[in-house]
Amino acid sequence: MEQTLDNIVKKNLKPEDLKQFNRIHYGREDHCELKLKESTIKKCHEANIEVAGYYFTANREQIRDPRYVKVGVIQHSIVQPTDKPLSEQRAAILKKITNVIDIAAAEGVQILCLQEMWYMPFFLCTREKDKWAEFAESATEGPVFNFLSPIAKKYQMVLISSILENDNGTWWNTAVVINENGQYMGKHRKNHIPSVGSFSETSYYAPGNLGHTVFNTKYAKIAINICYGRHQALNWLMFGLNGAEIVFNPAATISEFGESFWGIEARCAAVANSYFTCSINRVGTEVFPVIKDGRKEFITRSYYGSSYITAPNGHRTPSLSRVRDGLIISVLDLNLCRQMKDQWGFNMTSRLDMYAEKLSQKKET
Amino acid sequence: MEQTLDNIVKKNLKPEDLKQFNRIHYGREDHCELKLKESTIKKCHEANIEVAGYYFTANREQIRDPRYVKVGVIQHSIVQPTDKPLSEQRAAILKKITNVIDIAAAEGVQILCLQEMWYMPFFLCTREKDKWAEFAESATEGPVFNFLSPIAKKYQMVLISSILENDNGTWWNTAVVINENGQYMGKHRKNHIPSVGSFSETSYYAPGNLGHTVFNTKYAKIAINICYGRHQALNWLMFGLNGAEIVFNPAATISEFGESFWGIEARCAAVANSYFTCSINRVGTEVFPVIKDGRKEFITRSYYGSSYITAPNGHRTPSLSRVRDGLIISVLDLNLCRQMKDQWGFNMTSRLDMYAEKLSQKKET
Repeated sequence: MEQTLDNIVKKNLKPEDLKQFNRIHYGREDHCELKLKESTIKKCHEANIEVAGYYFTANREQIRDPRYVKVGVIQHSIVQPTDKPLSEQRAAILKKITNVIDIAAAEGVQILCLQEMWYMPFFLCTREKDKWAEFAESATEGPVFNFLSPIAKKYQMVLISSILENDNGTWWNTAVVINENGQYMGKHRKNHIPSVGSFSETSYYAPGNLGHTVFNTKYAKIAINICYGRHQALNWLMFGLNGAEIVFNPAATISEFGESFWGIEARCAAVANSYFTCSINRVGTEVFPVIKDGRKEFITRSYYGSSYITAPNGHRTPSLSRVRDGLIISVLDLNLCRQMKDQWGFNMTSRLDMYAEKLSQKKET
Repeated sequence: MEQTLDNIVKKNLKPEDLKQFNRIHYGREDHCELKLKESTIKKCHEANIEVAGYYFTANREQIRDPRYVKVGVIQHSIVQPTDKPLSEQRAAILKKITNVIDIAAAEGVQILCLQEMWYMPFFLCTREKDKWAEFAESATEGPVFNFLSPIAKKYQMVLISSILENDNGTWWNTAVVINENGQYMGKHRKNHIPSVGSFSETSYYAPGNLGHTVFNTKYAKIAINICYGRHQALNWLMFGLNGAEIVFNPAATISEFGESFWGIEARCAAVANSYFTCSINRVGTEVFPVIKDGRKEFITRSYYGSSYITAPNGHRTPSLSRVRDGLIISVLDLNLCRQMKDQWGFNMTSRLDMYAEKLSQKKET
């Protein structure tokens, strides 16, 4: 069995120890697993996709009914080698994902988020721009939008699609929100762009210029914090101040870039801002043949998956696999957001006026 | 053996599994334990104090030498019942702590931090003010300052002492920094005050009015984020912007208040701000007899300890005991702070100007 942290402890700890471990590590003794359909389990098995279901409850209130929403997150590897024609590479991923979305839809998923730049290999480490330019597309009428739009409509599902956007000749790292009628609802552009190691994303696109939009979808108020933006507490904060109930973090990250805090950054943000966070990281190894000093070399990058979901009270699900495609389906009671704000008082005690002033002063020094 | 998370996994996992667990959970496969003196281990055993030593290394640089500093953190329970005379209660704690500081000094600790309001029971849950008022003292000439000052001088040790401050009739939750000559160096006042459950601290003192001072001590640039302030990302951020290399978080917190995120908030802050964090929580059960509706009742609070230290690369030590007194001694190479800023680029990409503006706008809406 694969050595995820959760598998390691489940396999080795006695029930009493496991309870204590889960309480300290995951915030609750029991994972609160959601019963999934037999057809879901069968189909995922056939497609070699890990599937997991969880639920998060809130206290019952007197006046307000529970506000359940069912979300899904998908982590996946690419299908074709990176030197195949672009259209073949993309078509193979689209085909695979169609199957997973169908499965999620059969479980009644209402909001579904895919990983960062989900329809292509994460080629940014190659520093090649021309070769991959045709994967940069319009947010409102590109092939990926046109592919997802009818699916969203068919299933009345809100879809979050992280794309490489080409807006009149300028590239952006963009998340597109498609509503349950298949319509373009809006987009968010990655606010913080890394130039870490070989991930020189700053040579491809600039920091986002669209602020911290919260999308008031039919099912929940949602926002998207793209990949590296998870390291910035203020980025998370603004989504919260703008009213987000769920913040999705589609990512593409490798072990060397802090696997040990992948499981805690989005979780801290969920606690600090009293919203749910859904963290999605791609899986699999991507090999890019490149020409360096006239010789063919290979750049290899392995993504560790480990997607997970956290509630505003800090409770979190185990992570998906580090190597396999996977789907988490989770029921969230959005009432927990306000309940946690009331309980912890982090918003009430945040003294944002003081910090606005202090940050403005810093600016001038 | 006590069920700390670290004990549970050490006891049950095979070496290979433990390595993988440690890598994902603590950031490194090996805890990098510091060899302590036999006399230290013997004295701690006699006093029933858990003791642990760790080190954190940085890359060797060409021009700059390593900048090692040895820090100590102490978690402890009260000694006398809470209905004994105040002076007896305090004297008993001072006596116990003197012994632990002596041990730390023999190991060469240069900066040492005690838990929140370390010389008294954490009486705030009682809502009694008069009864405990004599524990509120001057930051510069109170009994606790006068007790610690000669110790600091004797050992050339910087001491961080979290006190209940009475400044001309007003109470504050204050951390006093005493330098290696035993002199008062300055103080920090808790910036964010909780009113959560029975911890109605807002009825005792107001939010701190001294900003986010960083103390340029002989050994390191240090700051103090007191207890509940750990939930506020902006509080951590300001200490970082002001140049802190180590931020201490003396606390008094109970399981119901988020034990599952105790281990991750200060750690996220260390990563986000590229400094070391030292988290200290009191231990033991404190029982307060109170009169309610004319009848004697008992308020009981148990603190879960679990003190730990995190480096700016996210590597962290295991936690101390959940129930026993404890001392962590740790060698930090401060060079790691700049190295991590350079590696991750979180500072460079933080867009603080944008957030200063956005927070100012929020203020007006």
